[in-house]
Amino acid sequence: MTVSLKQELINIVGAEYVFDSFEDLYCYTYDASFSKTDLKDMPGIVVYPGSTQEVSQLMTLANEKKIPVIPRGAGSNVSGGTTSVGHCIVLVLTRMDKILKLDKENMVAIVEPGVITGKLQQQVQAIGLFYPPDPASLNFSTMGGNVAECAGGPRGVKYGVTRDYVLGLEVVLPTGEIIDTGSSTMKNVTGYNLTQLFTGSEGTLGVITKIIVKLIPLPPAKKTILTVYDSVEKAAKSVSQIMAFGIVPTTLEFLDNVYIRNIEEYAKVGFPMDAEAVLLIEVDGEPEALDKQINAIKNICQEEGAVQVRVAKTPQEAEELWNARRAAFASVARVKPTIIGEDATVPRTEIPAMIKRIREIAAKYQVLIAVVGHAGDGNLHATFLCDERDLEEMERIEKAIEEVFVAALDLNGVLSGEHGIGKLKAKFLEQQVGKQGLQLMKNIKQTLDPNNILNPGVMFGE
Amino acid sequence: MTVSLKQELINIVGAEYVFDSFEDLYCYTYDASFSKTDLKDMPGIVVYPGSTQEVSQLMTLANEKKIPVIPRGAGSNVSGGTTSVGHCIVLVLTRMDKILKLDKENMVAIVEPGVITGKLQQQVQAIGLFYPPDPASLNFSTMGGNVAECAGGPRGVKYGVTRDYVLGLEVVLPTGEIIDTGSSTMKNVTGYNLTQLFTGSEGTLGVITKIIVKLIPLPPAKKTILTVYDSVEKAAKSVSQIMAFGIVPTTLEFLDNVYIRNIEEYAKVGFPMDAEAVLLIEVDGEPEALDKQINAIKNICQEEGAVQVRVAKTPQEAEELWNARRAAFASVARVKPTIIGEDATVPRTEIPAMIKRIREIAAKYQVLIAVVGHAGDGNLHATFLCDERDLEEMERIEKAIEEVFVAALDLNGVLSGEHGIGKLKAKFLEQQVGKQGLQLMKNIKQTLDPNNILNPGVMFGE
Repeated sequence: MTVSLKQELINIVGAEYVFDSFEDLYCYTYDASFSKTDLKDMPGIVVYPGSTQEVSQLMTLANEKKIPVIPRGAGSNVSGGTTSVGHCIVLVLTRMDKILKLDKENMVAIVEPGVITGKLQQQVQAIGLFYPPDPASLNFSTMGGNVAECAGGPRGVKYGVTRDYVLGLEVVLPTGEIIDTGSSTMKNVTGYNLTQLFTGSEGTLGVITKIIVKLIPLPPAKKTILTVYDSVEKAAKSVSQIMAFGIVPTTLEFLDNVYIRNIEEYAKVGFPMDAEAVLLIEVDGEPEALDKQINAIKNICQEEGAVQVRVAKTPQEAEELWNARRAAFASVARVKPTIIGEDATVPRTEIPAMIKRIREIAAKYQVLIAVVGHAGDGNLHATFLCDERDLEEMERIEKAIEEVFVAALDLNGVLSGEHGIGKLKAKFLEQQVGKQGLQLMKNIKQTLDPNNILNPGVMFGE
Repeated sequence: MTVSLKQELINIVGAEYVFDSFEDLYCYTYDASFSKTDLKDMPGIVVYPGSTQEVSQLMTLANEKKIPVIPRGAGSNVSGGTTSVGHCIVLVLTRMDKILKLDKENMVAIVEPGVITGKLQQQVQAIGLFYPPDPASLNFSTMGGNVAECAGGPRGVKYGVTRDYVLGLEVVLPTGEIIDTGSSTMKNVTGYNLTQLFTGSEGTLGVITKIIVKLIPLPPAKKTILTVYDSVEKAAKSVSQIMAFGIVPTTLEFLDNVYIRNIEEYAKVGFPMDAEAVLLIEVDGEPEALDKQINAIKNICQEEGAVQVRVAKTPQEAEELWNARRAAFASVARVKPTIIGEDATVPRTEIPAMIKRIREIAAKYQVLIAVVGHAGDGNLHATFLCDERDLEEMERIEKAIEEVFVAALDLNGVLSGEHGIGKLKAKFLEQQVGKQGLQLMKNIKQTLDPNNILNPGVMFGE
């Protein structure tokens, strides 16, 4: 980074928001994904803009000088979507963290990109409303990142994912222009749906500087039930039967034996160590309807052969079970130092087939794979437990991951349900979307970002 | 249309599916919108392809020869989105009318574009599932058209609109290439959201040849309630209070006095002729929760000053009320020969202000405007009752429509909630999306359709 360029950046955001020491820069070669850090990927400089106008000036400058720009929120990305590339400008949006509007009557919130998702949820809940998307990272990830990645979470089965709540955006284009997409209205069909083009575009098409989200009424009551199985198939069959009965649970979480054992050792919530599968199910809605739903779920699971069915008697007991579920990743992190969480997703009925394939792949490559997932929407997280210092193991892991993707596509599924493509899965994207589909995406990228300065390498590779 | 080109088209789809008599062609200068028919807009030829491959061949040929192509389903478009342009090929997709898959377990349907929306709903309901989008045209409009326009309907307030159900598409690009977007899975974040780029693109970016939609469980019960007011404000306040109470009705329909009188004269369902506003409300869900909701709605509306509150005692009585609502357009068609239904949409709380503006505009231009609307989502249908043969009146109508759009934008609303831009509102689009937003949309159009052959004039004007 030249002295004069640094000065130009300082002129835009102020000296206190520009960083370029080795220690500062090195941090941004990482995000929460498993990705090999390389000194050649060191950013040139890191800036923290404070307003849309500053973002616009930064993009105009970067575009003029054709310098890569990596937009970033909390860096909790797990697909390598926010790691730096060599000599880039890292654009950290966490200073822009204001909730600009909470409109109770119209059930709409307007936020800056740096707002922590969990913080928005709390404030929304305080006025009796609900912003449902709940990625595991919600207590530290930002709304801008959630929108850029179209974050999901356990509640997706009933409430959908981030895109289902984004009504409109303010976006700074790679060329520095500022546009508004969508609106605060629930219905809107004026022109192309640019809002959804940017949502999930992984920071490759524009920098999101404002977000309008839809809110819904907070469900008045909820209940949690835990069911335990001696086979994965029985658990999967229970899931199908619950949905076929007309019940859409808020969350319908699946844990395999590896997770069950590790969570139980870690959190001691009473999971039977020898169980092959656990379903953790929450229903919400009008209290009058909940008992009926819980009873129906209990009956269905027992009919499908559940060896244990336990309804949480108190909100505390329910919270304890959900805390155990949230500790899933932490619990397996004690087994091996490197955790690679994939999220290939299949149609719900293909869950048993997918888990069978994952086990065959684990056996074939002699690697350890644990499976946790949002069973209601087929979104499985095959978790590879390994040690990145063991290069020979990592070679086997890489092949195993590739076969998991192939298995998902074979079963009419997708590469990623909620983590995105990032840099890590870029080379697989064509298998999913086809040659023409990929070319069309590249053409759109080229149209919006003619100099390919915004998050280069993400989605399309080098 | 040259003889050799006609022969090429016959070679693709067969002679029985190619039409070029004056009478045949003339029909396609119209759709369900108010638009002036002009002989200069006569199509060159009309073709009915029977497969994706045929559509692809047709597009390849048209693109080579730079001939405009107008894709069309039932022609029920109300924004001039499917009227022909001079010497074009009209591509009618109604032959491709198969429901290809109804997957009860995964709650997904795959359909061809020519499937009538109401027919899909019936078949889905027969297996205990629900496809909610309910444009007024649902008994004759097609799924392809619904997706191309992102059709809405009364149930939008609770269930969202067409885009909320489209998971994936097969699309023939203007250049003839065939791409698949999205997937059958509930979660999918692999690459740009092309599915939503095509949904609502009004036939300007590609020809939709296959549609994957999400289905949901059919709600087990529903109830209808009618509330009557002596002021619009009280009705609007009731709407806000119902939603604030945490109830999201399935539908929350508003009728003004002009509609109330005309519907009552036409259908005799017992609307008080002097009422200023009527709300027709349906709630659905678990039977246990419905009575509570209906009672809460009753109380809220009475507190807000409803002069009459009537809960339908039987499904028949409810159906009668809803049939009366559906007869709204027909009832006012007796008043004047030309009906122009606009659908400028505002945030819910701006409904009283918007209705006040509409009345002021009606008075200013001495024109007759009736208002019906989906009050739950702010989607109002200002209906202009006029006579297109009266050119002086039509000039005033045109100015009044323009002012209604300005009023909607002033109130933080949008030009169109569910009808689309088409040819009729193209000149207003920039006011909504801004210069840069419009330019970006045009750039995307140019990228996908370099020769501007697909539905030219729609969305962007000449």
